[in-house]
Amino acid sequence: MPTPVVVVHGGVRVSAPRREDPAADEEAVNKLRWIAQSAYRAMEAGGSALDAVELAVRLMEDDPRFNAGYGSALNLLGEVEVDASIMDGYRMRAGAVGGVKGVRHAVSLARAIMERTPHVLLVGEGARDFARKLGLGGNEDLVYETRVEYRRRMLEALKSGRGPERLKSLLDLLPLYGVADTVGAVAVDSEGRLAAATSTGGLTLKLPGRVGDSAIIGAGTYASRAAACSGTGIGEAAMLVLGAYRVVKEVEEGKSPQEAVEDVLLEIHKTTGYAFGFISVGADGGIGVAQTGYGLFWAASGGGWVDGGVKKERPKGLLVT
Amino acid sequence: MPTPVVVVHGGVRVSAPRREDPAADEEAVNKLRWIAQSAYRAMEAGGSALDAVELAVRLMEDDPRFNAGYGSALNLLGEVEVDASIMDGYRMRAGAVGGVKGVRHAVSLARAIMERTPHVLLVGEGARDFARKLGLGGNEDLVYETRVEYRRRMLEALKSGRGPERLKSLLDLLPLYGVADTVGAVAVDSEGRLAAATSTGGLTLKLPGRVGDSAIIGAGTYASRAAACSGTGIGEAAMLVLGAYRVVKEVEEGKSPQEAVEDVLLEIHKTTGYAFGFISVGADGGIGVAQTGYGLFWAASGGGWVDGGVKKERPKGLLVT
Repeated sequence: MPTPVVVVHGGVRVSAPRREDPAADEEAVNKLRWIAQSAYRAMEAGGSALDAVELAVRLMEDDPRFNAGYGSALNLLGEVEVDASIMDGYRMRAGAVGGVKGVRHAVSLARAIMERTPHVLLVGEGARDFARKLGLGGNEDLVYETRVEYRRRMLEALKSGRGPERLKSLLDLLPLYGVADTVGAVAVDSEGRLAAATSTGGLTLKLPGRVGDSAIIGAGTYASRAAACSGTGIGEAAMLVLGAYRVVKEVEEGKSPQEAVEDVLLEIHKTTGYAFGFISVGADGGIGVAQTGYGLFWAASGGGWVDGGVKKERPKGLLVT
Repeated sequence: MPTPVVVVHGGVRVSAPRREDPAADEEAVNKLRWIAQSAYRAMEAGGSALDAVELAVRLMEDDPRFNAGYGSALNLLGEVEVDASIMDGYRMRAGAVGGVKGVRHAVSLARAIMERTPHVLLVGEGARDFARKLGLGGNEDLVYETRVEYRRRMLEALKSGRGPERLKSLLDLLPLYGVADTVGAVAVDSEGRLAAATSTGGLTLKLPGRVGDSAIIGAGTYASRAAACSGTGIGEAAMLVLGAYRVVKEVEEGKSPQEAVEDVLLEIHKTTGYAFGFISVGADGGIGVAQTGYGLFWAASGGGWVDGGVKKERPKGLLVT
């Protein structure tokens, strides 16, 4: 019988923090360790891997330090529009939401779409109306004050102008306030079933309606009967190379979850130049945690153990910094 | 120097037509042959593969027989919400729109997102506002009268009720009015650059905000320097198995475009049970056309030749009908 394991991430930093704050980082990691343990215990208590990843992501959506749910990054207009997805690798089914306003627990809305509609992805006002009908929110205020100040400063930096490089500088400026980017979780339960989930407010100052990899099955989230994967970083990179799908496929082809996440990160970097991070778990409970940015916040828990930290080393073979 | 080739599809029938109408089918195929030739000529006149697939899809979006642009399928509320995507395999970039109203040429909006923003996917009202700002529509009336009648009849059939099977019966009832489903195009130009594009109104009676594979890079559309692919059918199936991405990867690994589309169709059928269709072209100009439904409308044109028809045979190895 497989040993249940859950791995969570609180996002990767895609650019160097202006100043280090080790105490704040440690607090965030402790929170993630607690979340991983809670999700593990939920499986001990009879929950499935799917229940565990949903619970873990909900707990991160509630914490404004993480860029998901309450405290999400603000778009160009100062609004919160969230993306999320969840996948049940055992039954090969998935649900996702993109660009939805007023929903604190987008991961639970994604699960409802998986379980209660014939569709995979709902977006915008349609997704919001569906949430309202099911009592899953739709009118919740997700704006956290510190994000407002952060967006204002970022907008000023943009306006101070670098001419034709403005769009690029928008991406360069992404040292997201708070801990890092996007949250996610992967788990395997005692019956060997695998699941993955991801949730995010996306990029600060993103165009209204922009949907990133966290809403896309195969890009930011994927699971099969062999492995599960959740990603974080500049979503457009994972959307072009189908990052999470490739991690899972590499495990199916015999690589360990750690080898697979490192491989695909190198591929993303080579193809797009962007920093990214992944967590993964295999059917045997082996885990993978890797990043090509400035630190991936993660934690994991299994039978009697818990681990976690800010992973700063990058995979061997990464030539450019 | 590679020979430029363009392949287009006007969608697959995912269930058997109530009655055959060979004359109407032939007219539709003739239109597709003309569209393939026009797109080929656009490359002869100096256009890129990207220009060719955009042009081909625009011409199908204009024709109400095809489920894209003007004459799109209507959602549960009787509205048109369209999805589209385009990918430049040479430069590994892509753009897409999902669940957008009032935009006749969604493929051109997708291209603008690719070329003029740092994002890949915009959805809903944000995408519509972006279209308005660029003069790419946003207030166009896309409702074609025959679709209204079709939706009304389908709704009645659903209401006559099959109890808990209602959601499933929604999918079973999909014999889409008109020619078939979703349109798309793939092309390789004289410089060997590959591109793919897909556009659709989606499923009749879909939930508002539902986005299908046609908006998802890797699901309904993908291109690299080796191959390009566009799909049609029940989008949720391609979203779960990353259909278009897998076709392109199989060509990269040495299969012909025809072998690759057949392989992935069998995989989709095995995994999800759904009928689907793909067109593909490789860097050497070899093409692939296959389907597991009740007929894929397609046409292709290269140096001095044009071909096309309603492909009804299914790949060998498909066990279930």
